[in-house]
Amino acid sequence: MTLIETFGRNVRQARKDKGWTQEQLAFEAGVKRAYLSEVENGQRNVSLDVVEKLAKALGAEPGALMDQA
Amino acid sequence: MTLIETFGRNVRQARKDKGWTQEQLAFEAGVKRAYLSEVENGQRNVSLDVVEKLAKALGAEPGALMDQA
Repeated sequence: MTLIETFGRNVRQARKDKGWTQEQLAFEAGVKRAYLSEVENGQRNVSLDVVEKLAKALGAEPGALMDQA
Repeated sequence: MTLIETFGRNVRQARKDKGWTQEQLAFEAGVKRAYLSEVENGQRNVSLDVVEKLAKALGAEPGALMDQA
């Protein structure tokens, strides 16, 4: 699994852990819902500014969203 | 400090811990030295594919390169 895929999987899990829809997380992070969907599916080569926005919205450490566990 | 700046600082520290020049790390990671210099200076909004290349070259976990400590 690439880091892009791992990150997407972890974002989806963290979002579900909060009981949020993609719409809710997209709004909180200031990204579009369609974009977030692609991120979660490992189809977007996300840059660090977006990693930071998503981590803040989720209340997670950016590094924790990279964990391969 | 933004995540972009934190990441750059951590990459530089991890590189120095290995006793590598920017030329060496750039070669191992398959990026240009001038680009790596900008990354280390927090001037590049790095994407996850490059995070993964740099982490592998450094023998580091991608998430560890995000640590704000």
